[in-house]
Amino acid sequence: MAVERVYNFAAGPSAMPESALKTAAAEMLDFRGSGMSVMEISHRSALFQEVFDGAKAKLKSLMRVPDTHEILLLQGGATTQFAAIPMNLLEGGTADYAVTGNFSGKAAEEARKYGKVHLAADTSDTGHDRIPAQEELSFSPNAKYFYYCANNTIFGTEWHYVPEAGAPLVCDMSSDILSRKVDVSRFGLIYAGAQKNMAPAGLTVVIVNKALAGRELPITPKILSYETMIRTDSLLNTPPCWCIYMLGLTLDWVIREGGIPAMEQRKRQKAGMLYDFLDESRLFKAHARPESRSWMNVTFRTGSDALDAEFLKGAAERGLVNLKGHKLTGGIRASLYNAVPVEGAKALVEYMKEFEYRHV
Amino acid sequence: MAVERVYNFAAGPSAMPESALKTAAAEMLDFRGSGMSVMEISHRSALFQEVFDGAKAKLKSLMRVPDTHEILLLQGGATTQFAAIPMNLLEGGTADYAVTGNFSGKAAEEARKYGKVHLAADTSDTGHDRIPAQEELSFSPNAKYFYYCANNTIFGTEWHYVPEAGAPLVCDMSSDILSRKVDVSRFGLIYAGAQKNMAPAGLTVVIVNKALAGRELPITPKILSYETMIRTDSLLNTPPCWCIYMLGLTLDWVIREGGIPAMEQRKRQKAGMLYDFLDESRLFKAHARPESRSWMNVTFRTGSDALDAEFLKGAAERGLVNLKGHKLTGGIRASLYNAVPVEGAKALVEYMKEFEYRHV
Repeated sequence: MAVERVYNFAAGPSAMPESALKTAAAEMLDFRGSGMSVMEISHRSALFQEVFDGAKAKLKSLMRVPDTHEILLLQGGATTQFAAIPMNLLEGGTADYAVTGNFSGKAAEEARKYGKVHLAADTSDTGHDRIPAQEELSFSPNAKYFYYCANNTIFGTEWHYVPEAGAPLVCDMSSDILSRKVDVSRFGLIYAGAQKNMAPAGLTVVIVNKALAGRELPITPKILSYETMIRTDSLLNTPPCWCIYMLGLTLDWVIREGGIPAMEQRKRQKAGMLYDFLDESRLFKAHARPESRSWMNVTFRTGSDALDAEFLKGAAERGLVNLKGHKLTGGIRASLYNAVPVEGAKALVEYMKEFEYRHV
Repeated sequence: MAVERVYNFAAGPSAMPESALKTAAAEMLDFRGSGMSVMEISHRSALFQEVFDGAKAKLKSLMRVPDTHEILLLQGGATTQFAAIPMNLLEGGTADYAVTGNFSGKAAEEARKYGKVHLAADTSDTGHDRIPAQEELSFSPNAKYFYYCANNTIFGTEWHYVPEAGAPLVCDMSSDILSRKVDVSRFGLIYAGAQKNMAPAGLTVVIVNKALAGRELPITPKILSYETMIRTDSLLNTPPCWCIYMLGLTLDWVIREGGIPAMEQRKRQKAGMLYDFLDESRLFKAHARPESRSWMNVTFRTGSDALDAEFLKGAAERGLVNLKGHKLTGGIRASLYNAVPVEGAKALVEYMKEFEYRHV
């Protein structure tokens, strides 16, 4: 049966590589000759250990994670890390948070339960349309860490530099991990909810400098302790096996396509087409300031809610789906994660041109 | 291509209904005509909301969950609930824990971080081969709740009565949920890791009396707050969408098969065959005392480690897999969750008879 796939611009959960989906479907009833689905085997079995070790090894290799750092495959999403990070690293002290969007704001709010939060930056005054420059950042004297969110899915902004801070860097890379080269050794902790560039929702990848582990508050749940998870290789309890399996299949695809350099080149091509058109457009206007624009989430609007709605309706009719902006911002948002093909971005720009021609 | 499936006696993750796996494979690239996988759509979309609401409604109907209680679909497994329960319900006071196995022991240990734990029972003296009778339970005067684990997968014992306690009952039903009729109104909180009778690993179902919510300690992570999760209908953040989808497919199967009464009848048939043979056997010996035996996990051994190993090897050659006992107990364990067919239990008993004939 022929299946008609769409171009999916969802902000997360979002498009996945078709090859990963096809493999998953083919192996559903019989994973590697076991006579069982990968969901039906023990997380302590040799067969699953291969899946687990394979996913970790591919990620380590793709991101060049140094041996100083451990990769943890956890549950709970970014919202869980909002608490786990201060519970593990804050020691009741002060941390610096750069609030450049919704999720860094939530992270800062949660951290206040466990110590002091100093706002190193806050871009809410201009609707989070920008990323602060290094010289705008304000640091507290003895910060335990400096926290920021690399890419803001809702507002469509992205840090194009790694901040210099005296304290260890803690970075939420949920929405741009694997889309750019990252020098992991510069970070104390990187984490990412998997549901954008890595795997289905239900998996959180944490990459933590092992030297930072073991200082959690006594009230930290065992499941949130980095030290415990490092010691048990993320297998304190049953992990989200299916998501880890899908992570492996997705990383196989990333590797076949050429690794992170290929993903980086492709995202520039996709987002570049959109921004080039937006800069010329007499109808559509980009939300983010040019120097702060995200390569993953392109946010824009016509200026008229009615026209935005008409645009979204027409897009869906052409198989360009999930382009509606977040409820906090309205407007239009095209998320261009790794698995969104270049053809998808091309088709979107074509439609935007046509729509503009009809309405200007 | 014909697929050769095995009889899978894994303790969890474990056998799933074949019909659920087949539907999942068929819908992988195009979920309900969307042109996307169910893993690729937003958790805030109408299409996913249907999946979410459907799974909850089926569970509510199957388990007859009263309106006083809320069903939460969470991440993190039982180990997360070990902390979440005292963080939400203990209020720094005392709780009574009946320790009848490994997981109730771990739960009690974690609760000590947040208040006082009184051991209402502890069966470790006889290798957790039994469930205490009501009159053996010891209660503390002002307990915030009474905690127990309904079925002990490792030791193969199960509570065949609901304890009477002055405090709200909190019960870990990870390994026997949906296998027996439960009067939910008698419980303050029921929870279950999904990876045995419900869905793939990565989903935790919590059924909580709403009257117990809203009393969490100030240091409770937002993601672990029952009050927050009730208020947001478990959608504070991105839920484990795939697992929730698979839960729905599994519940469809349970309903088609005749609901919980059918599951109960079938488990008695399966475990009954095994226990009947074990009671007659001159080679195999059951671990649990007769009155405390689990209908889900049948634990036994020959008395010789070498013979146990030979048994397991021969079983695997016949497609009877994952029968090895937990590392804490050794021996043999047949987990007979809902999705294990009666034919599987029959084939196992046949093999046990033959093995005994050859070795006695």
